Amino acid sequence: MSAASPLLPPCLEGLRVVEISAFVAAPLGGMTLAQMGADVIRIDPLQGGLDYRRWPVTADNESLFWRGLNKGKRSVAIDTSTAEGRELCQRIIAAPGPDAGFFVTNLPARGWMSYDALRAARPDLVQLTLQGDRHGGSAVDYTVNPRVGLPYLTGAGSADEVVNHVLPAWDLVAGHLLAIGLLGAERQRTRTGRGQEVRLALEDVALAMISHLGFVAEAQLGAPRQRHGNELFGAFGRDFVCADGVRIMLVALTLKQWRALCEAMQLGSAMSELGRGLGLDLDREGDRFQAREAIAEWVADWVGRRSFAQASQALQQHGVCWSRYQSLQQLVASDPECSPANPLFSSIDQSGIGRTLAAGLPLNFGAGPRLEARLAPALGQHTEAVALEVAGLSSAEFGRLVDRGIVRQAKA
Amino acid sequence: MSAASPLLPPCLEGLRVVEISAFVAAPLGGMTLAQMGADVIRIDPLQGGLDYRRWPVTADNESLFWRGLNKGKRSVAIDTSTAEGRELCQRIIAAPGPDAGFFVTNLPARGWMSYDALRAARPDLVQLTLQGDRHGGSAVDYTVNPRVGLPYLTGAGSADEVVNHVLPAWDLVAGHLLAIGLLGAERQRTRTGRGQEVRLALEDVALAMISHLGFVAEAQLGAPRQRHGNELFGAFGRDFVCADGVRIMLVALTLKQWRALCEAMQLGSAMSELGRGLGLDLDREGDRFQAREAIAEWVADWVGRRSFAQASQALQQHGVCWSRYQSLQQLVASDPECSPANPLFSSIDQSGIGRTLAAGLPLNFGAGPRLEARLAPALGQHTEAVALEVAGLSSAEFGRLVDRGIVRQAKA
Repeated sequence: MSAASPLLPPCLEGLRVVEISAFVAAPLGGMTLAQMGADVIRIDPLQGGLDYRRWPVTADNESLFWRGLNKGKRSVAIDTSTAEGRELCQRIIAAPGPDAGFFVTNLPARGWMSYDALRAARPDLVQLTLQGDRHGGSAVDYTVNPRVGLPYLTGAGSADEVVNHVLPAWDLVAGHLLAIGLLGAERQRTRTGRGQEVRLALEDVALAMISHLGFVAEAQLGAPRQRHGNELFGAFGRDFVCADGVRIMLVALTLKQWRALCEAMQLGSAMSELGRGLGLDLDREGDRFQAREAIAEWVADWVGRRSFAQASQALQQHGVCWSRYQSLQQLVASDPECSPANPLFSSIDQSGIGRTLAAGLPLNFGAGPRLEARLAPALGQHTEAVALEVAGLSSAEFGRLVDRGIVRQAKA
Repeated sequence: MSAASPLLPPCLEGLRVVEISAFVAAPLGGMTLAQMGADVIRIDPLQGGLDYRRWPVTADNESLFWRGLNKGKRSVAIDTSTAEGRELCQRIIAAPGPDAGFFVTNLPARGWMSYDALRAARPDLVQLTLQGDRHGGSAVDYTVNPRVGLPYLTGAGSADEVVNHVLPAWDLVAGHLLAIGLLGAERQRTRTGRGQEVRLALEDVALAMISHLGFVAEAQLGAPRQRHGNELFGAFGRDFVCADGVRIMLVALTLKQWRALCEAMQLGSAMSELGRGLGLDLDREGDRFQAREAIAEWVADWVGRRSFAQASQALQQHGVCWSRYQSLQQLVASDPECSPANPLFSSIDQSGIGRTLAAGLPLNFGAGPRLEARLAPALGQHTEAVALEVAGLSSAEFGRLVDRGIVRQAKA
């Protein structure tokens, strides 16, 4: 492939995925596929799903959350409390075609939405079902996190204090796992003709990740993790404050990072002496962790005697691994990485909201175009198009459903 | 497909992925593919990569972290400071076959490891390259997180206090995105014959996610998020303490969850009255957030007058969305979900470590077997097998590389 090879279309172009979902994980999974070029159709109740007013909202109660997690999808509004509405949903989900027949949901997949009911209409259906816990019980990110121990390890408080996370990290991981599961099942269906249901429990996602990272085995072996405040576990890293009050994070996880830090601060001989005094080899990450308080005294002194401008110049020059703490306001006001200068972002203008940044897919596929972030649909914006093109309704049939209030077609 | 359909093999069986990596994201991306049946070959230096001693470690300095993030892979140990070592790596990465030619790395992809160098050996190579920032600069999860504002929103401290996260959430998301990118590029190569490089920057992952969730647009529109301690933003949710000191998390995000909570605590009329008094409609999630302190007084009173056993029975009976705070020690000691009773987990016995739990893939593919968690390899355990089967070396050629210290074959 030469540099002159023409760009390919986005890698999932042509794939059609139907989503009945709410909140973070399933909408994010669907949006990730949409940002890779798939035609993702989200079906919602006539007045919007459970997440349609999720905060943050504007003064007019328009959800920035919903707009952020449904970019580039098509929106269909159907009253599924009616038999005709449910039948239309089934026809959309089970529509024919080798690149169709993919369904993602995090709502209770019972009755007409169960895999058994839906595969009656399309035997090779691939259905991704996200549950709270694996037994079908209710669980959300903010109830899963307390169960797996992290609130006792976060922050610098006393042993029995708990600190919840603000980022719904388990939802984010689960959403990406749904996309992985769909692509894996799609590959298998292409090769074997067989569809399947793929189940995922949010609680299992959290349990798997803390196990993969070693937290579970560590606790089982009887060496429970302690709370370490802002310190990086197992190596050297912490926050420090410059003379002008700017706060920075410094990390020396690898030997190269440690040497860069020592060089930038001219601490080489002091650290050798410190290590000898403590009987530790500070070139070893674990020894740095054991000596972290003594190391931090030297580092705090160096940082505290320099302005941010002075400190950052030296850190940058020596290739230290560091960053500046920024509030979200600082981030959007002055960080070029959070602006259209970063091709991840587009500046978009949304009715009822105004102009804001919107992020596209962080993955950058070399063979295709970098897709700009697209607007989220208006609720029900694509009801007619999908009913006609995908479900095969006639205009007259669609008009009757509109008249009876079973579907809603919105303006763009 | 009837219930009697024979199980298919794991959905990625036959796919071969080569990984040169360290720490969380890239190893997790590779492991996720391995847990779906792919043959994932991790190549490391003779004495192990940058993460080979990453904490948590046992008393014998065996890394629970490394074992956790490399389960089910094959391990090859090669000295890439030699030309022969680099050539062997290239032969493994660029080996022929329609299901081979996939390479994942988070080390600097320069020189012989660059996409341009590697695709000279296999023009349809798919290479996934994870960087710290999009300019190729150094960044790790713990420096990315301060930059995107979350440490100022975590915990209950004063406005200028920062709380780092303990979970490397950005690494976890990035790892899963690598797997998504690989599967998307694999699908496109199968259809077009074209390979490509897919780039991902850890910093972009964090920026995209906080944008998707609405944090960025909210800050741009001038309504900066405040710090809310353990409270769920935008609805009702918080931690409460039972009479016997057990701490629980309660969430009323949806209307159904709110009604369940009110019923369980018999707060229906009190909440109606409270809403009227405040001029709010507590059936609306945002109004619950505004009234959260007043609601919490009632809830704290109810929870505080009950033992955990009493409270949990009522919450469970009414379908409230809740959980118990557990330390990691409590989790591994007494939660059946973190035990072999949950098919996510296997109990495995590892040399030098002993018996611990290990998690498999949280995705549960209905058409295939649920794969048990497999052991991580010993460093260099598969060097000979991969050199002979994949790179096509003769036993004599391999023996010469061993004799010259360029490769290392370890016992299982």
